[in-house]
Amino acid sequence: MHDKTLFSTFAGSACVVTGGLGFMGSNLALALAGAGAHVTVIDSLVPTHGGDHRNIEPLTSDIEVVIADIGQRTAVAKPVADADFIFNLAGQVSHVDSMGDPVRDLDLNAASHLGFLELLRQMNSTAPIVYTSTRQVYGRPSYLPVDEAHPVNPIDVNGICKYAGEQFHLLYSQVHDLTTSALRITNVYGPRQRIRDNRQGFLGIFIRQALEDQPITVYGDGEQLRDCLFVDDVIDAIASAVQSSEIVGKVVNLGHPDPLTLGDIAKTIVQTVGSGSVQFVPWPHDRAQIDIGDYFGDFSLAKRALGWTPKTSFDEGVAATAAYYKGHLDWYL
Amino acid sequence: MHDKTLFSTFAGSACVVTGGLGFMGSNLALALAGAGAHVTVIDSLVPTHGGDHRNIEPLTSDIEVVIADIGQRTAVAKPVADADFIFNLAGQVSHVDSMGDPVRDLDLNAASHLGFLELLRQMNSTAPIVYTSTRQVYGRPSYLPVDEAHPVNPIDVNGICKYAGEQFHLLYSQVHDLTTSALRITNVYGPRQRIRDNRQGFLGIFIRQALEDQPITVYGDGEQLRDCLFVDDVIDAIASAVQSSEIVGKVVNLGHPDPLTLGDIAKTIVQTVGSGSVQFVPWPHDRAQIDIGDYFGDFSLAKRALGWTPKTSFDEGVAATAAYYKGHLDWYL
Repeated sequence: MHDKTLFSTFAGSACVVTGGLGFMGSNLALALAGAGAHVTVIDSLVPTHGGDHRNIEPLTSDIEVVIADIGQRTAVAKPVADADFIFNLAGQVSHVDSMGDPVRDLDLNAASHLGFLELLRQMNSTAPIVYTSTRQVYGRPSYLPVDEAHPVNPIDVNGICKYAGEQFHLLYSQVHDLTTSALRITNVYGPRQRIRDNRQGFLGIFIRQALEDQPITVYGDGEQLRDCLFVDDVIDAIASAVQSSEIVGKVVNLGHPDPLTLGDIAKTIVQTVGSGSVQFVPWPHDRAQIDIGDYFGDFSLAKRALGWTPKTSFDEGVAATAAYYKGHLDWYL
Repeated sequence: MHDKTLFSTFAGSACVVTGGLGFMGSNLALALAGAGAHVTVIDSLVPTHGGDHRNIEPLTSDIEVVIADIGQRTAVAKPVADADFIFNLAGQVSHVDSMGDPVRDLDLNAASHLGFLELLRQMNSTAPIVYTSTRQVYGRPSYLPVDEAHPVNPIDVNGICKYAGEQFHLLYSQVHDLTTSALRITNVYGPRQRIRDNRQGFLGIFIRQALEDQPITVYGDGEQLRDCLFVDDVIDAIASAVQSSEIVGKVVNLGHPDPLTLGDIAKTIVQTVGSGSVQFVPWPHDRAQIDIGDYFGDFSLAKRALGWTPKTSFDEGVAATAAYYKGHLDWYL
């Protein structure tokens, strides 16, 4: 569950959520609207992304939806100008897609955001903005846990483009006095994630395979560590970040205190869902090229500055996720 | 003078120089053509960049010129497919322009290069490629001299976009087996630089002010250190880099062993040119925002891997530069 007290401060305020029909965006939009905020979602519904109108049921009538790329000025100008808070979650997250069509990834993850920031600079320079970046910018960790001082070393097109988008946000704080911050988010799972394929990471596909009573495919020996975040914990962090003056112009890692091996992640999912199995297979070439080994983040800055720490254990999160998909599986396959 | 022995290996080979009508590009194209290479220059002649057909006199008839952005596939496909060596120097270098029109900077410094790399991957995956990056990606140094392990922290749009362009080059080596490397270049000066304004850095404008017997404007106390490279030393490094197997997939710093303060740089220019004066003025707001304090680079990797070290002292370089502009000043004002 997300933190209702944290969200109560948004009651009556105008909130823009970009990517708001997608996975994290829709969970955030629902929490904001549920707390009494006036929510406008901007989403371009790129077919391979996770956007779906059904993600914002049952609050569809309370949430305004603008179907547009965030770089389309005429479409997004009004909600952006009127916003009290801006949650900039739009973007392409698929690493494999970024390698297949790199120019499009740059367009979606960097050019659109730069245009969006220009619009904000001109039309609304006071609303706080949170941007969702990714731990992918660190590449293969040179030490663990990875803190924000860890050198940046992206190892795929997506990481390079997301880093540019993130840096534009920080720069517009430093140079143009926008109130921006960026969260570097690790593997997220939960209701409303795209589970049709692995475009939103391995967790969605693991959960789907279990739900369909299929073997979960783990590459290699499955000993790589990952810290997994339940989406409600992530939206709590986003809600804290947009209200914080301490992290303006900064990047902040999110992470989970209990990293798990991929093998244990798969086994926990099978046990919790109650179906499926775990199968270890050799690395496919295109995935091995962009694998990063172990990763888990140091999120002490988030703890200190935002008072944030994830509240959901992996078992609890997977149980809640499985319960959601069991009720709506046809929407997501 | 550039190193003629180093360039002799290009005799008879097909060389593509992007940005080849600009400052560094034209000096490189002239050296290659002078050594007997078949040189094709690709340049889009963006008016605010430094490109000018006169930069490749007196070898105009020996050098093929394609006027196109490097992202225009149909225009650049043939020379790129036929090339033995590719020198990718095209780009926007003006920090102030990058802040005024950030979307264009991303287009010129990242999107075009990504398209160019896609073309190379499809049409010529064997020719070695050198990309000219910039020390600007480091931002304000956290230690000196700055080596390649120094964290990346760009502080303007240009730095963010150039970093993306550079990282695309390295990625295409790691993932698609292109033979790419990137040089992070510090302040360069010499013949054929744009000196009409400060778009190619402060050195060009300092030299112009002295040549016109005007006061050279130094911001603040002028105590910030910079390492300055004469363009012939830079093209030697580029020529070495494209022939090196040791730096494939890597970034390599260039630098000068004798950093100077901005005040001393200005005074040396006045003395060497024989006219002008030095005037200290307060920082203008838009420049102070993007100033980086002291900077000088650790170029021991270039020394070790390329056998490169700059041969030209600042006095010698300025004398050669002044002599060139005295003969061609009308072209550059």
